[in-house]
Amino acid sequence: MKDFRIPLVAVIGGARCSEQEAAWAEAVGRLLARQGFGVVCGGRGGVMAAACKGANQMGGVTVGLLPGEDDGEANPWVQIVLPTGLGEARNALVVRAGVGVIAIGGGYGTLSELAFALKWGKPVAGLGTWELPGVYAAASPQDAVQYVLAS
Amino acid sequence: MKDFRIPLVAVIGGARCSEQEAAWAEAVGRLLARQGFGVVCGGRGGVMAAACKGANQMGGVTVGLLPGEDDGEANPWVQIVLPTGLGEARNALVVRAGVGVIAIGGGYGTLSELAFALKWGKPVAGLGTWELPGVYAAASPQDAVQYVLAS
Amino acid sequence: MKDFRIPLVAVIGGARCSEQEAAWAEAVGRLLARQGFGVVCGGRGGVMAAACKGANQMGGVTVGLLPGEDDGEANPWVQIVLPTGLGEARNALVVRAGVGVIAIGGGYGTLSELAFALKWGKPVAGLGTWELPGVYAAASPQDAVQYVLAS
Amino acid sequence: MKDFRIPLVAVIGGARCSEQEAAWAEAVGRLLARQGFGVVCGGRGGVMAAACKGANQMGGVTVGLLPGEDDGEANPWVQIVLPTGLGEARNALVVRAGVGVIAIGGGYGTLSELAFALKWGKPVAGLGTWELPGVYAAASPQDAVQYVLAS
Repeated sequence: MKDFRIPLVAVIGGARCSEQEAAWAEAVGRLLARQGFGVVCGGRGGVMAAACKGANQMGGVTVGLLPGEDDGEANPWVQIVLPTGLGEARNALVVRAGVGVIAIGGGYGTLSELAFALKWGKPVAGLGTWELPGVYAAASPQDAVQYVLAS
Repeated sequence: MKDFRIPLVAVIGGARCSEQEAAWAEAVGRLLARQGFGVVCGGRGGVMAAACKGANQMGGVTVGLLPGEDDGEANPWVQIVLPTGLGEARNALVVRAGVGVIAIGGGYGTLSELAFALKWGKPVAGLGTWELPGVYAAASPQDAVQYVLAS
Repeated sequence: MKDFRIPLVAVIGGARCSEQEAAWAEAVGRLLARQGFGVVCGGRGGVMAAACKGANQMGGVTVGLLPGEDDGEANPWVQIVLPTGLGEARNALVVRAGVGVIAIGGGYGTLSELAFALKWGKPVAGLGTWELPGVYAAASPQDAVQYVLAS
Repeated sequence: MKDFRIPLVAVIGGARCSEQEAAWAEAVGRLLARQGFGVVCGGRGGVMAAACKGANQMGGVTVGLLPGEDDGEANPWVQIVLPTGLGEARNALVVRAGVGVIAIGGGYGTLSELAFALKWGKPVAGLGTWELPGVYAAASPQDAVQYVLAS
């Protein structure tokens, strides 16, 4: 039987970010889409929006798990909008949905997601993010994507 | 700006179901896909699998919010697999994600989802399901889809 | 070893309620406390507040699982305030925490809780609530408490 | 009106721990109880069990938010057992319930809880735990409790 599953990679980072981080996230979204992987994220702005924008540029799939109950919180590049209503507890769901995780910058919310990813043994690559044992410090978006997809 | 959002309708019902219910669910999936709506569901067997199968027949999008942590629980017609790890609390998320809800048969899990849908004022159509004030008793899959999309 | 566990019964119903319902809930809280059972509820007003008030009158324990993130939402008779931030998905947790469930009046939120309770096979007694197979229609608060504790 | 609320402090750490960590956790539980604060934790073994044990020695209140659906997972010193069924997403609820957080040792689960605590601006003291900006490195259980209660 044909398998319809679209594998996802979680892209995590701040709802506000620098231009550098946005450029990295957009490139990550494009690279994942080219390899046939969808982006799953928290659905909001900053790194999440940039990753979704990049994925759409290459025809990729984008999924946003919002913290609130209002689907209007989503950035305009999210295709599948899921308003969880769970608050930050939804961070666990974002990480769970990915075969791997790419972190770009980010604050304490991103740290909670990295912690879940490492606890569950997911491959994790980072660009300018928290330095933790188990997080691969990638040299570029391409390097990050390659690391996660090879694992 | 182009909007990339794919609107979703929640299709709910038992993980085991009769042939009649499966036929209804498959038709609902096909009809939603034809109208440009994706199916969001609990990702498992029975009504959920049939709705996803139907949607795929017409090139539609399918999203499954699984109760467990294991993405292997998903039926093979789910494209976007989200293993929530929330147990039955994920029922609230399935309903929240839909612009409307179509219920086919179903037991107590389906009843919990109907209750959430009615609480949040979503349009709800039913085929052979719980009779509750606010649930439109549809005469056919087409009638159910029309009712929900018109609301 | 001494067991420190305090068994809980879930008391569910509307955040607004009639005087009759409040009187029933207060009596249920008192009767549970006398038997050494704590009250677990959604932590807000109406039936929940009355049940907690009754429990405190007899020195019982009260636990409130709030939907929001703000502990100020709790009624003043909740001893253990847990702001879940999960929205209505917290309804599943209220039911899960009880050895049984007593429903008093209530709308769609209460219906979702009854559905979870029946799905999980918990004993459920009701006073002026949804009529469902499996919900014992109690004649009085005492009858409701007796039914649930006997199961 | 009398306020029945019992303020809680979250005590977090590994489900397995060293003797040193257990001794610290037990002391923290005792010190919190003496000050009239309850312990809220993940309800399992290791640091969680030791903190609950200490609290019970001084007549304090103990609350355990279990990841699973089975209340048998709780350690024997938990008074209020709440089987959330949310998996590790329940970590957010543990932290949310405390006026402050004390971390003792711990791995990635503890790291996720520290991240939530810092995101929400809760006072956090640590004993032999992750070194993060915003986590007060306490010199002793007493120092940790004093820091959190003073904030």
